[in-house]
Amino acid sequence: MPTIVVEVMPKAEILDPQGKAVVGALARLGKDKFSAVRIGKRFELTVEGPVDEALLAEVRELAEDMLANTVIEDVVFVGEASTSSACGGS
Amino acid sequence: MPTIVVEVMPKAEILDPQGKAVVGALARLGKDKFSAVRIGKRFELTVEGPVDEALLAEVRELAEDMLANTVIEDVVFVGEASTSSACGGS
Repeated sequence: MPTIVVEVMPKAEILDPQGKAVVGALARLGKDKFSAVRIGKRFELTVEGPVDEALLAEVRELAEDMLANTVIEDVVFVGEASTSSACGGS
Repeated sequence: MPTIVVEVMPKAEILDPQGKAVVGALARLGKDKFSAVRIGKRFELTVEGPVDEALLAEVRELAEDMLANTVIEDVVFVGEASTSSACGGS
């Protein structure tokens, strides 16, 4: 069944203590090439029928309204999973 | 500065109660087109220098070893942020 992916990241101006902990832990483990790590969420919504532009628009709205807290988070990607995997995913 | 994206999802055979709660909430709000929701993580690692195949291979290894708990999670995507945005992201 088709899957729509929604990706949400903390806004650039918001501190991300979880990401900060990860970049510190990586540095202690010798992986010091990374200057910052930020951690967001990836939602996979499985739909019954076909994915068309209208459904994607609905999901875009729903992502802004319900999946992301737009005070502190941005929706950075909404799209069908197969498209993203054709670009090197999974 | 270039950013490498790592995406981690719970394995298919692992229950995802957080996703289950979201799909239930969406249904109660009238969004009943979705048969399942699963929630994973999206890491953005900012690097200082250029991103080459060697660095991506290192991040792939690091993702499996440190960012994902491979007992319950799969790494579904590792790649440079600009490439994924060329495919419709952000």
